[in-house]
Amino acid sequence: MLQDPARATAEKIRKLEIQGARNVAIAAITAMETLANQTKTDSKKEFLKELLKAKETLFASRETEPLMRNAIRLIINQVEENPEKSVRKLVGTVSAASQRFLMDLENSKERIAEIGAKRIRNKSVVFTHCHSSTVTNLLKKAKQEGKNFDVVCTETRPLFQGRITAKEMLDIGVKTTFIVDSATRFFMNQVDLAIVGADAITSEGNVINKIGTSTVALVAQEARTPFYVISELLKFDPDTMYGDYEKIEERGATEIWEDSPSKLIIRNPAFDVTRRDFIHGIICEEGIISPHSITEVMHRKYSWVFK
Amino acid sequence: MLQDPARATAEKIRKLEIQGARNVAIAAITAMETLANQTKTDSKKEFLKELLKAKETLFASRETEPLMRNAIRLIINQVEENPEKSVRKLVGTVSAASQRFLMDLENSKERIAEIGAKRIRNKSVVFTHCHSSTVTNLLKKAKQEGKNFDVVCTETRPLFQGRITAKEMLDIGVKTTFIVDSATRFFMNQVDLAIVGADAITSEGNVINKIGTSTVALVAQEARTPFYVISELLKFDPDTMYGDYEKIEERGATEIWEDSPSKLIIRNPAFDVTRRDFIHGIICEEGIISPHSITEVMHRKYSWVFK
Amino acid sequence: MLQDPARATAEKIRKLEIQGARNVAIAAITAMETLANQTKTDSKKEFLKELLKAKETLFASRETEPLMRNAIRLIINQVEENPEKSVRKLVGTVSAASQRFLMDLENSKERIAEIGAKRIRNKSVVFTHCHSSTVTNLLKKAKQEGKNFDVVCTETRPLFQGRITAKEMLDIGVKTTFIVDSATRFFMNQVDLAIVGADAITSEGNVINKIGTSTVALVAQEARTPFYVISELLKFDPDTMYGDYEKIEERGATEIWEDSPSKLIIRNPAFDVTRRDFIHGIICEEGIISPHSITEVMHRKYSWVFK
Amino acid sequence: MLQDPARATAEKIRKLEIQGARNVAIAAITAMETLANQTKTDSKKEFLKELLKAKETLFASRETEPLMRNAIRLIINQVEENPEKSVRKLVGTVSAASQRFLMDLENSKERIAEIGAKRIRNKSVVFTHCHSSTVTNLLKKAKQEGKNFDVVCTETRPLFQGRITAKEMLDIGVKTTFIVDSATRFFMNQVDLAIVGADAITSEGNVINKIGTSTVALVAQEARTPFYVISELLKFDPDTMYGDYEKIEERGATEIWEDSPSKLIIRNPAFDVTRRDFIHGIICEEGIISPHSITEVMHRKYSWVFK
Amino acid sequence: MLQDPARATAEKIRKLEIQGARNVAIAAITAMETLANQTKTDSKKEFLKELLKAKETLFASRETEPLMRNAIRLIINQVEENPEKSVRKLVGTVSAASQRFLMDLENSKERIAEIGAKRIRNKSVVFTHCHSSTVTNLLKKAKQEGKNFDVVCTETRPLFQGRITAKEMLDIGVKTTFIVDSATRFFMNQVDLAIVGADAITSEGNVINKIGTSTVALVAQEARTPFYVISELLKFDPDTMYGDYEKIEERGATEIWEDSPSKLIIRNPAFDVTRRDFIHGIICEEGIISPHSITEVMHRKYSWVFK
Amino acid sequence: MLQDPARATAEKIRKLEIQGARNVAIAAITAMETLANQTKTDSKKEFLKELLKAKETLFASRETEPLMRNAIRLIINQVEENPEKSVRKLVGTVSAASQRFLMDLENSKERIAEIGAKRIRNKSVVFTHCHSSTVTNLLKKAKQEGKNFDVVCTETRPLFQGRITAKEMLDIGVKTTFIVDSATRFFMNQVDLAIVGADAITSEGNVINKIGTSTVALVAQEARTPFYVISELLKFDPDTMYGDYEKIEERGATEIWEDSPSKLIIRNPAFDVTRRDFIHGIICEEGIISPHSITEVMHRKYSWVFK
Repeated sequence: MLQDPARATAEKIRKLEIQGARNVAIAAITAMETLANQTKTDSKKEFLKELLKAKETLFASRETEPLMRNAIRLIINQVEENPEKSVRKLVGTVSAASQRFLMDLENSKERIAEIGAKRIRNKSVVFTHCHSSTVTNLLKKAKQEGKNFDVVCTETRPLFQGRITAKEMLDIGVKTTFIVDSATRFFMNQVDLAIVGADAITSEGNVINKIGTSTVALVAQEARTPFYVISELLKFDPDTMYGDYEKIEERGATEIWEDSPSKLIIRNPAFDVTRRDFIHGIICEEGIISPHSITEVMHRKYSWVFK
Repeated sequence: MLQDPARATAEKIRKLEIQGARNVAIAAITAMETLANQTKTDSKKEFLKELLKAKETLFASRETEPLMRNAIRLIINQVEENPEKSVRKLVGTVSAASQRFLMDLENSKERIAEIGAKRIRNKSVVFTHCHSSTVTNLLKKAKQEGKNFDVVCTETRPLFQGRITAKEMLDIGVKTTFIVDSATRFFMNQVDLAIVGADAITSEGNVINKIGTSTVALVAQEARTPFYVISELLKFDPDTMYGDYEKIEERGATEIWEDSPSKLIIRNPAFDVTRRDFIHGIICEEGIISPHSITEVMHRKYSWVFK
Repeated sequence: MLQDPARATAEKIRKLEIQGARNVAIAAITAMETLANQTKTDSKKEFLKELLKAKETLFASRETEPLMRNAIRLIINQVEENPEKSVRKLVGTVSAASQRFLMDLENSKERIAEIGAKRIRNKSVVFTHCHSSTVTNLLKKAKQEGKNFDVVCTETRPLFQGRITAKEMLDIGVKTTFIVDSATRFFMNQVDLAIVGADAITSEGNVINKIGTSTVALVAQEARTPFYVISELLKFDPDTMYGDYEKIEERGATEIWEDSPSKLIIRNPAFDVTRRDFIHGIICEEGIISPHSITEVMHRKYSWVFK
Repeated sequence: MLQDPARATAEKIRKLEIQGARNVAIAAITAMETLANQTKTDSKKEFLKELLKAKETLFASRETEPLMRNAIRLIINQVEENPEKSVRKLVGTVSAASQRFLMDLENSKERIAEIGAKRIRNKSVVFTHCHSSTVTNLLKKAKQEGKNFDVVCTETRPLFQGRITAKEMLDIGVKTTFIVDSATRFFMNQVDLAIVGADAITSEGNVINKIGTSTVALVAQEARTPFYVISELLKFDPDTMYGDYEKIEERGATEIWEDSPSKLIIRNPAFDVTRRDFIHGIICEEGIISPHSITEVMHRKYSWVFK
Repeated sequence: MLQDPARATAEKIRKLEIQGARNVAIAAITAMETLANQTKTDSKKEFLKELLKAKETLFASRETEPLMRNAIRLIINQVEENPEKSVRKLVGTVSAASQRFLMDLENSKERIAEIGAKRIRNKSVVFTHCHSSTVTNLLKKAKQEGKNFDVVCTETRPLFQGRITAKEMLDIGVKTTFIVDSATRFFMNQVDLAIVGADAITSEGNVINKIGTSTVALVAQEARTPFYVISELLKFDPDTMYGDYEKIEERGATEIWEDSPSKLIIRNPAFDVTRRDFIHGIICEEGIISPHSITEVMHRKYSWVFK
Repeated sequence: MLQDPARATAEKIRKLEIQGARNVAIAAITAMETLANQTKTDSKKEFLKELLKAKETLFASRETEPLMRNAIRLIINQVEENPEKSVRKLVGTVSAASQRFLMDLENSKERIAEIGAKRIRNKSVVFTHCHSSTVTNLLKKAKQEGKNFDVVCTETRPLFQGRITAKEMLDIGVKTTFIVDSATRFFMNQVDLAIVGADAITSEGNVINKIGTSTVALVAQEARTPFYVISELLKFDPDTMYGDYEKIEERGATEIWEDSPSKLIIRNPAFDVTRRDFIHGIICEEGIISPHSITEVMHRKYSWVFK
């Protein structure tokens, strides 16, 4: 049966079969588009109801996924604001909005790499934490442009995503140093720049990213090392504007210690919050901005996220 | 053949068959005592020469072991300052000095636990990093005294010594929370006190301890959480007084990543330096002192280390 | 005689018969509306002159009252921008603008409470200074939503407004701890959040509030305790944009010491300035924003304040 | 021959015959206007090509001159956006845009002086570094308004521009204290306010100004002394938005030491970067703004700079 | 009956009939001397037992009184170390030790005033908090020496001890400004020096003094205003060396709010802890010392406190 | 005539014919020795009177010269403490004390160079300010030991002593970069270590050195760059112990601007104060110590300076 691509996708997201802010957003958009194409109704009201139900299903699949949520917000907003009554045409609207979002996402990635690559000076040393495809894409761009730089990256416990970063850097011929997370301060005085990705940006201008990021930022500040966040603007979470704390996913104990003693409490928060004052700039598709102005940038460029 | 207990012990230390500042010091003292007992000479000059050669051998066994070095310094100092000429009697001096050092070490441990336990308030939460028997001994003492407290401890990559700490705490019935190193800042605002051990103390009052300690200290300061170092005074390294940097042992790559890519540079410093200004106090056998006054404390109590 | 409601109201404001940014603004609006209703002229030019004279009178009644001033600015702006020539219809414009302002003010209060209440976590401890109805309204909302939290509040010398806060909190069943102002730092490490009201916001993003607020902010920062300002956006003072310092009212000596020695100089500034960098966010009717972006928020939402 | 006023002006700029952000901008505008007046083409496309070539020539004359570059950007933007096809009329457009830019520049200067003068309190002491006509203009305005204040200024090595500042201040009767640059911290606790000019403003909100400015800012922050930057908004450099670092001009060695030893490396950077967090406000023609919101201010007022 | 002057004095101390570290110490010494004079025993052992019982009684009279405790420690130490067996002669030892302590205390006061007065520059403004006779004695000395200076002092809630300070300053003709505690930060940028007294000094070099002192210190540091503690060395508390936290007396609720609502929790800690790093120097009878070296100073000058 | 070598030397010191803490001390000692040799009295009392008069004369020759003052203190102390009555023999005491002081000074210089040279790592970059022979001696030692390092030095306005440093460094083949003082922050992130000399050390542990030193220290701290002071312990000024502020010599205006405008106030303080908390260590003949313990070090090694 063809029913409910939203539920199917939500399930995969919940089970981590789909991972990464980008991939999750792409899957959700595809689900929305599929669902629209499968609609049987010819009432706009009904159609919207179906979309809103899908939204609810997908939103519930993970606590914090602003990119995915913003994608769905956009699609529904386009339909709502369209004076058109014909459902068939509105299905086209969904398709168009979806395609535009995906294309914009791709363009943003390219644009961010172009802008950010200019910040990588020749013969510099760049520090990074965890793995972010937006970050490694930027570094690859810099390498392609002929810049010669080194990378220091952390292993990023508990899931060792730093190993992916290290491999990607070695693959493009970048001299890479690999350290445990707690050696960050030991090496910070020897690097020129620290860059990390983002999972979400709050209305205060704070950044939610992999656990440990806020410590990298603090340690960078202590050593007067510039610290940049590389992120699409649509990782902004409009719910934080209205008072919500960004939820911090807490993952399973076995990721940290497989056969731990029975009474031991293992806490495994996946993210932490880096305050705006530690961030020199957010490198986004708009350019390099101060995190303090994030809500105004969003109002100017993507005001529909606030609806 | 009976020859050269110093060389045999040095070898075991080098191969990490003997580990931990305390154990290394005990083994070295025992070697010195054995060596003295085996001496064939009856010239004091010759005897001292033998002791000095043993000293050289043992000092060379590991880069940074101030406790062991100070033990050997004490023994030789006692012989040198003794007006006695009879080697047989001087062998007794070596024995006596060795026994006194070992007893003092034991007493210090007890004394430190008594003093430090008073800093653990009832219903408080204590943060610690890595495993230090001086620290866990203190916590056990506090527990024995009927205090009720929780512990948060890091896993301490790459060798997971935090697991030993966690087990010891669970064994005595302390509620224990276990986290990855990079979650330190996430939990710091929820604890009342941070305590760590020490491998060496420099003449500036800085503390050398397990990699990551200086970050715990920085993060504690940012949250106005008191940060204490628990250490015997004889971990003071007199060589730092005369300009030497404390050597930071750099360990093997496989501790961090067993089958790492061939071109990857893995850096594995075992220790880092925590500046005196992050340390509320050093809890030692003397009591709780400001690290800034360490050289004067040493001059008052153990002036022979400077010889 | 019916003359000059502006002057009568200004007098009451001057004598502190009307107090509190909100109440002062409401009284001034009412005066403007009454004055408009009483007008005898049928020349728009004359009518505007009357309004401008009333504005001058009301502005002069207190040094710093941006909310009241913005209310009057809005009313006059509406009349000026109205192409209508009929005074009778313009009187209606005044009425409409006044009503809208009052309604907006009421809505803002509700909206702020809704947004801010989400920041109060269950089982948390909230610190506040002085008395602000915007703050207590927010706390009441959180309580109504079933959240369980404690409050620590300062007595707030010299006028003990903290006692009002304490009573309001006890009335709704919140466990409340009451301290002298100078004990703020003693308790800061035990609270989770500090929130205060505002009398004015400057174009730099700084907040003017009851004397002592900037110290609460400094002490909160030292303990990594989040510090929020709760305020309607219309407390923004556009005159600071054009260079004016916000005037700090200096009140009478007897508030501090009734029978003080004759030569003693008693200084009694009613407010101080909290720099934007101490403020995690301003919780306003828009949502939670970084104070650094305040002028752009005002340009987007209330651009008429700049006229 | 009449050819190429752009090249002639560029040459003078390169040789420092024309200096100062303002003067350079004025000269470049004049060159653009002259060039437009001299055009022989009657194709809009050709005309634009000529303008773009002139732009390239003038941009190349100095590494960092955002004011000049923005002036040229404005002129070309006006032509591009004009639907008009007649080159003669477009020449008029160039003239009009040029005149407007110059007039706006003049008005900005006046407006900045008016706004900034309000920040100079009577009987205060003002600290400044280097020479900026925008700064001294502001101080003259304050003096004209009858304010009584003192000035402390640095000599500003290597070119002693502080002497110009000192003379201008003495000329208007301001009590002036003159110090070497490295005495800044010695005097900072005795001043009430520090103000400096700007050569460029980046998209992060940082300010590029004469070498030493960032140290003045750091030292001011350490003493809780307010630090303001006085600048036209059009010193904002849109290229920094897209990743470029602001180029720091490095000048000749003889400015520092005329007959220096042959092997000595003399480094003479003319500017440094003051981070936004040290800046209380940018005093510009808009008013006093937080540097963190600079890109949004530019988008609102001068969105054409981003094209 | 003549019995138990220790118990009688302890009772008065407990009821606050005797107040102030100095007065309490003097009373306790007098009680010890009286008790010695009344002894009936002629066994040294018995005599010491009596003294130790008195010590216990007096120590129990107030939680934190290191000056008094050190006085008693000195007296008993003198008896213990005296090889003399005759109780009559040992009574003389008690007398002599008591008299010496009192004389030393008086001399210290004078010496501290002499040293500290040199720190008061002509035409300076001095900030102080609460009332300390050591501080006002110093200021009187400076005034006697012909120095012209102003004082800013806080009222010091809840007991308004600042009023005593203000009156004493006015009595000697010092221009005095009086403020509420929470206005400290408002005025800090206008003063040249902050000085306060001490109730106790810990082995870490921290100072216990009237609630609010640590905030004055923090605010002074933020404004780069030197902050000095004026104290006799014998306020050092040797128990902190051995792990004890200095007890913070918590006083009655009615001091803060006489008829407070029944459910209100009023917390009234009398003291707080100022960390050594905020203190430029301790001005004591030895001279001006860094608080970080306090234990070594005590070992050199008053090593008997550690017994 | 042979009279009064003290007065003659004092005159030369006053006229700056003798300069540098070391040279001034040597000249003063020589004067004391000569004066002693010329004495005609044979009464010890008279002889001491002559020495004390010379002391007064020499002390008056310059405001701040602790090294010279301590030298004279030592000589007089040796005579005073000598039970010998014969003036002839006491003249010998003066000679012996003088010779010992000079020899100690020479030995200290060597010892400091040996200790400090160990802090210069191979391939490192060392920052220095002004010229100090103690500092350059240390760097020469490091070079002799085969270390390869670069130096960055400031020109040090107004007297350009940095040029002497630069030449000395070039002479021994060190790659040297030369900058204006206000470029210190520009280069701080690129150096590994900052070292400076000292003119005086206070009892708080602060260091008086060439104007600008405290800014170097602040800027070093901001970049987490270690900052060391290189100094003989006898630059400690015991008068600061007893309350005196170290006098800051204020030199002539023409050093800064030869033909300055007549009304201009030129302030030319020669020194500033670097707070102990910016100093990682004082490298002295004792070794590397925390400045916080300076008075205790002096009590242990040179207790006669306090007499």
